[in-house]
Amino acid sequence: MTFKSDNTAGICPEILEKLAIVNQDTADAYGGDSITAYVKEQFNLLFEKQVEVHFMATGTATNCLALASLTPPYGAIFCHEHAHIITDETNAPELFTGGAKLMGLPGNNGKICPEAFSQEIHNLAAMRPHNAMPAALSLTQSTEAGTVYTIEELKILTSIAKQHNLYVHMDGARFANAVVALDESPADITWRLGVDILSFGGTKNGAFAAEAAVFFNEHLAKNMDYQQKRFGQLMSKMRFFSCQFEALFENNLWLKNATHANKMAKLLSKKLLNFPEVELIYPVDANEIFVKMPSALAQKLRDQGFEFYDWNFSKELIQTYRFVTSFNTKEIDFTI
Amino acid sequence: MTFKSDNTAGICPEILEKLAIVNQDTADAYGGDSITAYVKEQFNLLFEKQVEVHFMATGTATNCLALASLTPPYGAIFCHEHAHIITDETNAPELFTGGAKLMGLPGNNGKICPEAFSQEIHNLAAMRPHNAMPAALSLTQSTEAGTVYTIEELKILTSIAKQHNLYVHMDGARFANAVVALDESPADITWRLGVDILSFGGTKNGAFAAEAAVFFNEHLAKNMDYQQKRFGQLMSKMRFFSCQFEALFENNLWLKNATHANKMAKLLSKKLLNFPEVELIYPVDANEIFVKMPSALAQKLRDQGFEFYDWNFSKELIQTYRFVTSFNTKEIDFTI
Amino acid sequence: MTFKSDNTAGICPEILEKLAIVNQDTADAYGGDSITAYVKEQFNLLFEKQVEVHFMATGTATNCLALASLTPPYGAIFCHEHAHIITDETNAPELFTGGAKLMGLPGNNGKICPEAFSQEIHNLAAMRPHNAMPAALSLTQSTEAGTVYTIEELKILTSIAKQHNLYVHMDGARFANAVVALDESPADITWRLGVDILSFGGTKNGAFAAEAAVFFNEHLAKNMDYQQKRFGQLMSKMRFFSCQFEALFENNLWLKNATHANKMAKLLSKKLLNFPEVELIYPVDANEIFVKMPSALAQKLRDQGFEFYDWNFSKELIQTYRFVTSFNTKEIDFTI
Amino acid sequence: MTFKSDNTAGICPEILEKLAIVNQDTADAYGGDSITAYVKEQFNLLFEKQVEVHFMATGTATNCLALASLTPPYGAIFCHEHAHIITDETNAPELFTGGAKLMGLPGNNGKICPEAFSQEIHNLAAMRPHNAMPAALSLTQSTEAGTVYTIEELKILTSIAKQHNLYVHMDGARFANAVVALDESPADITWRLGVDILSFGGTKNGAFAAEAAVFFNEHLAKNMDYQQKRFGQLMSKMRFFSCQFEALFENNLWLKNATHANKMAKLLSKKLLNFPEVELIYPVDANEIFVKMPSALAQKLRDQGFEFYDWNFSKELIQTYRFVTSFNTKEIDFTI
Repeated sequence: MTFKSDNTAGICPEILEKLAIVNQDTADAYGGDSITAYVKEQFNLLFEKQVEVHFMATGTATNCLALASLTPPYGAIFCHEHAHIITDETNAPELFTGGAKLMGLPGNNGKICPEAFSQEIHNLAAMRPHNAMPAALSLTQSTEAGTVYTIEELKILTSIAKQHNLYVHMDGARFANAVVALDESPADITWRLGVDILSFGGTKNGAFAAEAAVFFNEHLAKNMDYQQKRFGQLMSKMRFFSCQFEALFENNLWLKNATHANKMAKLLSKKLLNFPEVELIYPVDANEIFVKMPSALAQKLRDQGFEFYDWNFSKELIQTYRFVTSFNTKEIDFTI
Repeated sequence: MTFKSDNTAGICPEILEKLAIVNQDTADAYGGDSITAYVKEQFNLLFEKQVEVHFMATGTATNCLALASLTPPYGAIFCHEHAHIITDETNAPELFTGGAKLMGLPGNNGKICPEAFSQEIHNLAAMRPHNAMPAALSLTQSTEAGTVYTIEELKILTSIAKQHNLYVHMDGARFANAVVALDESPADITWRLGVDILSFGGTKNGAFAAEAAVFFNEHLAKNMDYQQKRFGQLMSKMRFFSCQFEALFENNLWLKNATHANKMAKLLSKKLLNFPEVELIYPVDANEIFVKMPSALAQKLRDQGFEFYDWNFSKELIQTYRFVTSFNTKEIDFTI
Repeated sequence: MTFKSDNTAGICPEILEKLAIVNQDTADAYGGDSITAYVKEQFNLLFEKQVEVHFMATGTATNCLALASLTPPYGAIFCHEHAHIITDETNAPELFTGGAKLMGLPGNNGKICPEAFSQEIHNLAAMRPHNAMPAALSLTQSTEAGTVYTIEELKILTSIAKQHNLYVHMDGARFANAVVALDESPADITWRLGVDILSFGGTKNGAFAAEAAVFFNEHLAKNMDYQQKRFGQLMSKMRFFSCQFEALFENNLWLKNATHANKMAKLLSKKLLNFPEVELIYPVDANEIFVKMPSALAQKLRDQGFEFYDWNFSKELIQTYRFVTSFNTKEIDFTI
Repeated sequence: MTFKSDNTAGICPEILEKLAIVNQDTADAYGGDSITAYVKEQFNLLFEKQVEVHFMATGTATNCLALASLTPPYGAIFCHEHAHIITDETNAPELFTGGAKLMGLPGNNGKICPEAFSQEIHNLAAMRPHNAMPAALSLTQSTEAGTVYTIEELKILTSIAKQHNLYVHMDGARFANAVVALDESPADITWRLGVDILSFGGTKNGAFAAEAAVFFNEHLAKNMDYQQKRFGQLMSKMRFFSCQFEALFENNLWLKNATHANKMAKLLSKKLLNFPEVELIYPVDANEIFVKMPSALAQKLRDQGFEFYDWNFSKELIQTYRFVTSFNTKEIDFTI
């Protein structure tokens, strides 16, 4: 049983069925089809607002297209120092933005420290024009530490951003897990708090390749059709990408999948904590578990068939491991 | 019945079935799975050579990643003045290459004129360093005019390229249609003639999103993993992209699909030529038909349910129209 | 005697003297000095308007910084097909703009044909988003053919641009020669006609490295300090660059220099036309002369010590040659 | 008396005189002149090796052109966390390199900690292809802390770089000050230790705009003419830039200027240390002094006419100030 990532899981059956249904007819290319139009309308309903949605094949492209809309090439994007965009996307953000700088900020539990954020804005602004212009804040929800920002925590950070005329991006590769964890409406934890663009992930939640850049700010979305094309993300048979969200939204499948994944993470973390040597590194708010344990124990678990990654990419993280659960994790998988 | 493009067709059944089969298990992400490994091996067999393959979600990304491997940012890429990369991909080639210049060349029937090519290399080289460095040749096969370069025609152009140390790219969005039309082996019409990278298209041939950058030149492929990631094309559930080619290669489905499409184009062109006012603009070698006809006749056809695009993007092309056939075009569709 | 270019001439004495004067004191770096502030004020007076000026070391950087302000990376810049920015600046425009496309337009005497311009805007817009977004017009004044647009000609082109919400750039590497030729005020032939940014050249007019990007549009200039820095054009000892314009503006030296150069071109063209085999290719409005003549005659002139360039970069230009005069061309130099 | 920077000083008289001499004749543009050729030869002699030299107008452009030669756009450049290229050049490195990532490393006295460097190479390499490829090391000599790497210290760092096939860049904005401080030959502290490209600064040492990218590695220099043009750094009247180095090399003016500046820094630091509240932050190896002192004392000095910058850009640097001396600092200026 693999806990390497939620992207090792396959496609959930409802989405496979949807593909077959959509395939029954020809349709205009590049998103000019009726299914894509219908799905976009579903996004409006979900977010209680007219939004502009662009479907992409990868989270990298979605995040980077969003960032490219929020910063000029001479700008700086503030994010947590462990943010996916700074540690796991090679130089894609730099490419898509034309050369903007990512500024990693410290903070406990994968959440940006507000004081560090304020301070860094001031430092950069004081250097004008010899260092990058403060331009955007990127928040990951749920975070790279498997935690979830509360509404209050988000408010503090987005307020600082807005005070300094920074745009706000939310990397929601695991947005569904956060919605479920907070039990709040998508609108209340995004644009009502000042988020300008959300990267809404479907792939880690049961799709095979469904990522959506959701623009809450009409002005920013103006020429996104050109950008999507230019970034090589305007798929010709777009309906097979957009329809994955149709399936996810039907009967709230996206929330069911995430609820299951979160629940499995809670259960698995309990099981792991049965070992007295195991220590949780971060609270388990969503579907990721980070634990410290002796390498001998890790080996023992691996010998039993558990698959999971070492997570010791910094000195502080010796003997740290990550487990991720997904829509199709089965409880029986982790009978230890 | 739509003849707008071969990308208005859906997914051919064999590919949908393959998705379901592949979905039966979990697998490592980002192409580290056994299906992707297997499909790569199939490419080696097909091309009678160890090749390096990268799967992408769009033709734009595939072409542009290929071009980025063949030219420095200060380089020039020579292509036909009607080449897709110069007329239909916004500024994606400029983005991916870091700012290289596309040089459109004239030539009949969508094929580059060798003399014009030679001349332009000389002109540019003479301007050094005040104009771009000649770096690469990009050929489209089958061409944007629906014609197919013969081996002899290809040889002449690739020889000129090699004489001047230019790399050669082949845009094979409709490569299958060309293979069928020429009845030659894939190897004989690519690397054996000096092609360095082929954009091998599956999407227009029955896949929903299957494009492969096939590197014949090991040296050029060295760091392509980084490039694929940086361009936002490293799909996490890669096996659902690579397996489309598995299905296409089984029982030569890719050739069957293309054979059908080419045959339908021949038939449809005959039907159209029954109207004395209809004139073929280019020979119908593959699956595209370009005709000149009075707009009244075009309207009449549209009234009968024929869907097709105007193709009058230049002065010379008044009252010109394009029809495209595909793997699922039915003969009955064009009973006029 | 060299007629290769106006940049083979050296520095005019008034500018050398100015350097020595400016050197008498220390000053804040990066343009924060009083001389630079003073010179900027002179630009306001000259253009009868509050303008924003950035001093650069090369015309390439000035043009490209200007273009980067006028087009998004997915945009198209329209220019004459012989425009310096498309034929002589390698891929710098593509680099600085993040990948915008230059669209060369035909037109007699180095001047853009208005119909071709309109047509191309329409063609591109119709392709949205599959080709670049019409974004900017770049005019060269005086032109690469040594001619000068009249106010009426400029009006027609800038009107088309404004109708379609395109910004207008003027490449004024030889702006002084045009001002002198037209005998109009700088304001009347730039912003009053809708020009948004002027590349104001000093180097070809007696400076050693003085180019200014003059922004007539406040909105466009907003973050140019960052851009100048990012493009490597924020010289630390900026006063030695800005002061060259101080010298050029004192006693209208810039107009005197250009008047002389233009006059010399007229005289030289007359001399050349004394040869019955010599034919003028374009009217001699400014300081460049393009002639067709037998290569034997060209050789004879070269044997006499005349230095000038072949200008046969296209098929139509066989046996064509360019002569350029400058502020320090002496009449005695061309006693043939 | 200003100690704000060594770029607040003007031009040293020998260079002004050289300009006048060089101005006596016309010359081919873009570096095709005999003076530029002569100066390039001087560089060969100085470095005891055939080198390739490109003259630029700014240090930013010189550093960034160098870096662009050493890293692909998907690469990482390692540098000290206070390196000028990461803190003071906006996003120019990202622009010029096409989006490479700068990785700031810790280390005392402005010098990179070798262990941190090794560790970070390993961390990045382990992430392949999800993070940048280790590509280059950039060392500043003399450092941003006003210290100078010893040959032994350099050897350790360049060895690590070479072990991992990284190229090495040296930012020598204050190279002369380091040469003087070490009393070693330029060759011994650059290419003989594995440096591939040196940014050789003249501007802070008495020139008005003279920066040279010195390529010790022939292979890397191959197409630099295109790059220089593309970056807007191919000045047409190049001889006025190259000749500044001619003047600097005559009678070892460059070393005399630096010797003076270093000596003045030593003297000034002594004077400052006469105040018991003043504490040196870093050793004074070259021409920069960093001190901690009460703000009241700083104010008192400013009231006496001393000009210098606050240097408190991080929390650890409260009440820290920087003083810089130059070729024309006079001892009498700092009678406190």
